[in-house]
Amino acid sequence: MYMKYSKMFTKTNKNVGDIKSKNARLLIQAGFIDQTMAGVYTFLPLGLRVLHKIEDIVREEMDKIGQEVLMPSIVPKLLWETTGRLETVDVLMKTVPANEVARAKNDAEYILNCTHEDVVTPLAQKFNGSYKDFPFAVYQIQSKFRNEPRAKSGLLRCREFRMKDLYSFHTSEEDLKKYYEVAKDAYTKTFERLGLGEFTMVVLASGGDFTKDFSHEFQARCEAGEDTVFYVKSKNLAFNREIAPSLAPTIDDSSEEIKEREDIIGKGIIGVAQLAEYLKISIDKTTKTILFETDKGDVIAAAVRGDYEINEEKLCKVAGVSKLTLARAEVVKKVTSAEVGYAGILNLPDSVRIFMDESMSGRKNFECGANKTDYHSININFGRDIPEPKEFFDIKIARQGDRFPENSEEYEVFKAAEVGNIFPLGVKFTKAFNYQFVDEKGQQQPIFMGSYGIGTSRVMGVIAEKFGDDKGMVWPAQIAPFQVHLVSMKGAEEFAEKVYQQFEKEGVEVLWDDRDTSAGNKFADADLIGIPVRLVASPRNGEKLEWKKRNEENSEVIELEEVMKRLK
Amino acid sequence: MYMKYSKMFTKTNKNVGDIKSKNARLLIQAGFIDQTMAGVYTFLPLGLRVLHKIEDIVREEMDKIGQEVLMPSIVPKLLWETTGRLETVDVLMKTVPANEVARAKNDAEYILNCTHEDVVTPLAQKFNGSYKDFPFAVYQIQSKFRNEPRAKSGLLRCREFRMKDLYSFHTSEEDLKKYYEVAKDAYTKTFERLGLGEFTMVVLASGGDFTKDFSHEFQARCEAGEDTVFYVKSKNLAFNREIAPSLAPTIDDSSEEIKEREDIIGKGIIGVAQLAEYLKISIDKTTKTILFETDKGDVIAAAVRGDYEINEEKLCKVAGVSKLTLARAEVVKKVTSAEVGYAGILNLPDSVRIFMDESMSGRKNFECGANKTDYHSININFGRDIPEPKEFFDIKIARQGDRFPENSEEYEVFKAAEVGNIFPLGVKFTKAFNYQFVDEKGQQQPIFMGSYGIGTSRVMGVIAEKFGDDKGMVWPAQIAPFQVHLVSMKGAEEFAEKVYQQFEKEGVEVLWDDRDTSAGNKFADADLIGIPVRLVASPRNGEKLEWKKRNEENSEVIELEEVMKRLK
Repeated sequence: MYMKYSKMFTKTNKNVGDIKSKNARLLIQAGFIDQTMAGVYTFLPLGLRVLHKIEDIVREEMDKIGQEVLMPSIVPKLLWETTGRLETVDVLMKTVPANEVARAKNDAEYILNCTHEDVVTPLAQKFNGSYKDFPFAVYQIQSKFRNEPRAKSGLLRCREFRMKDLYSFHTSEEDLKKYYEVAKDAYTKTFERLGLGEFTMVVLASGGDFTKDFSHEFQARCEAGEDTVFYVKSKNLAFNREIAPSLAPTIDDSSEEIKEREDIIGKGIIGVAQLAEYLKISIDKTTKTILFETDKGDVIAAAVRGDYEINEEKLCKVAGVSKLTLARAEVVKKVTSAEVGYAGILNLPDSVRIFMDESMSGRKNFECGANKTDYHSININFGRDIPEPKEFFDIKIARQGDRFPENSEEYEVFKAAEVGNIFPLGVKFTKAFNYQFVDEKGQQQPIFMGSYGIGTSRVMGVIAEKFGDDKGMVWPAQIAPFQVHLVSMKGAEEFAEKVYQQFEKEGVEVLWDDRDTSAGNKFADADLIGIPVRLVASPRNGEKLEWKKRNEENSEVIELEEVMKRLK
Repeated sequence: MYMKYSKMFTKTNKNVGDIKSKNARLLIQAGFIDQTMAGVYTFLPLGLRVLHKIEDIVREEMDKIGQEVLMPSIVPKLLWETTGRLETVDVLMKTVPANEVARAKNDAEYILNCTHEDVVTPLAQKFNGSYKDFPFAVYQIQSKFRNEPRAKSGLLRCREFRMKDLYSFHTSEEDLKKYYEVAKDAYTKTFERLGLGEFTMVVLASGGDFTKDFSHEFQARCEAGEDTVFYVKSKNLAFNREIAPSLAPTIDDSSEEIKEREDIIGKGIIGVAQLAEYLKISIDKTTKTILFETDKGDVIAAAVRGDYEINEEKLCKVAGVSKLTLARAEVVKKVTSAEVGYAGILNLPDSVRIFMDESMSGRKNFECGANKTDYHSININFGRDIPEPKEFFDIKIARQGDRFPENSEEYEVFKAAEVGNIFPLGVKFTKAFNYQFVDEKGQQQPIFMGSYGIGTSRVMGVIAEKFGDDKGMVWPAQIAPFQVHLVSMKGAEEFAEKVYQQFEKEGVEVLWDDRDTSAGNKFADADLIGIPVRLVASPRNGEKLEWKKRNEENSEVIELEEVMKRLK
């Protein structure tokens, strides 16, 4: 494939206004994508070439572990009703007729898929029911749709985006686990091939309500990423913040003397920072006590040091419940005998189980809500004001500075973008569709599923974030839109034409900047577009070409023959 | 690419119930597609391979005349508002949040595109404004969405379907016309390569409200098609029924004597057939007179012989108006002095222009509405009861038996499926977006557009319709899912494995039916799937293979070496 810049549909444009997202800014400036609206982009000729190359690599690796299909984007609501997700998935959209004439013609609603578990399960059910058919896996590469409220990170978070999604089906949990590892390896290989290998790590994440196991995310280290990874270097182990086990750095107040408990009036104070200031204590002396109603019908209290937040998922596990909702005002009142805002761990009824985070332990003279309207208790001490709990838990959201509990090693914490995930779904979807297999003995048995995603357009965004520099894009060769950016200077057009034709003949992908503009403009655009090799045809160099790599400073003047050798 | 049948995600299945559409039935039986709902299909591994091959051919041809992009499926309503199409396109859908949690998160509506003129025009406007940038063309291959009320023809009419759409931009109508011919040639080449060349013809069709010129459809002759083509063999000229000029076969009533006019009472008679029976005359003696209100504010009457229908598009042109609506009851009453249902051409007010179709001419003793409630006039004769009009027009919908007016040749009439169309859009969209170019003199000038579509999934359906036989699919080699269907008989597994590996090594696309089932089953499935060459490895033939083409009856037993030679 070869193209002349003068014939290209798009142009580079440095003046694209104040775009905060680096990947969006670079890709728009260089003419790879165009924003149609927040979170929705057109892939322009250069950008689509990159996207296709990314998806071709993904396809090659996925073909080794699954069979490609293409499921529809619009499907009947019934499918999503069957799995109970129609009313609960908060990014789900549906279609309706756009106007009155359309409504008169066909007044129907369809679901616009954001993911395809609800579609692939009944599809698989149509074809494969015997133990002999298992295991199997299908995948697709397709546009997906999400009802995103905020879409500000360029290709990292979109309302319409490209995705590869794979689904596997198994006759046992063991077989699922075996395939899960195969898929993990295929993903690792895929991200390596895409040029993200050295930045991307497998991160443990929540299994959601599908499984007690973790799921795994492929997180590419990236400042613009929306995830926070907690990394235990000595163990090469990484957690998504949402599930990272956390040991708070201890506060050394051993030299402090035990002070007398006081109840201080303090009405309408919002937040621990304001409270600490008001009480003239440090934030780590404050306590957050939150009351929850559980799916079992009881009320529990959770308490963390003021500088932490409660992690509800951790709390659920610790409390042995599966759902928590913030206690309603009337429940708070009944339990604490106070208005909302003054809950503490003191004098709660026996019926309220209290879970204290380990960050609460070892403190002296700490604050907590007085369970008395408008009052905060200070100088609370375990043993004197409230019995030291038998056990402290880890029920907080991990933060910078925390340690991995197993070896007390401080986490390395960094931002990352999730470029892939693999998910043991268990029987959630197969059960919903009553999809079972018949075993050797003729018995119906449950089917186990896994799902595995790669955001192919997000990969493009991450690569722009990671590899872009202050001059523009820097594409890894395997996904660059072209291999060579040929620049012809005034007077070298004929030679450039010859080189261009040679490339065309030999199948070298080349973009030739054949415009009648200054060398400065052409060089700046070459840097902006970021093709790996820039070649300059200049009368000064006769029948030789200046060879310069985008990611290197030096250039050399070499023969065309040598150019061809290097490109192969 | 190679695959073992035993590992394939899908299975063939003859028992798929009563599916009327041939293409849907064959493709579902053979495991190429699965129906998710009416007009919405999954492309299964075999079907997706075919679709990809079709789209690769289309892409290769389109790359020669345009640059590939990928525009989004969801876009802001504003774009469709700008072109005035938001409220008028009756197949248009929009997205809304699917549930209450989604609505709370982002209560937004987006248009789900059925076509992209409204998107590509402002996109092009961002990049190309100087005469130097023109002409240019972009295309995409993508899923499209239509709010179809009835979707019964398998892949021929879908709610979600695959399409290639190309848009070209020009500084003059002449340049558009020039490119239009280039696109026409590219389409012809494309359909030839897809195996549809000999069945597909360029058919003149309506230019809609975009242009006074015709558009062109690529119609594949096909019984299941929804279009009717009128073909003038001697001129190799074809028209879509909607615009086919029509000369009615003359009725020979020259020997009839002129009879006396009568007004016959006949209340509540519905339709010309019932009327003819009631009046004991032949249908071609009846007359349909329809009153219309025009966009110019006047009322016109149109009359055709009873066995024809009015073609409103033709009538518009003849009457020099751009919109017709059936006259309201009160208007009919006022103009005819009768209730609706008794309008005729007699005694209409002078203000009502009357347009008579040429099928009206030369008749004796014909019937028409009496313009008197409950009455029909019979034995009407031009000259005696109403002056012979100065001019007859062609304002009818053509039908089987009609002649091409220019040479009175009887049309060949056949059903066809529209696999492509090319459309001179003129300035409709560029004007709506105020998209102009700056010419050499710095003046703003109008931009002319064309649009060009190919339904890639419909092509697959048409090929199934055209090439499928009573045993199953018969794929043209260039789009077949595999080139070879290898069948191994009991005892020949080892040899088959060797052949399979050889194919894999040499890059021959092969599907190996490695199942432990009867030869009969395997042969029936091979016929159903329709891969061009079937090879049988059987102990009877030793190290030779039985070679049989899907579209031939004979088979031969040949060496593997000879097989390889033939496949290349």
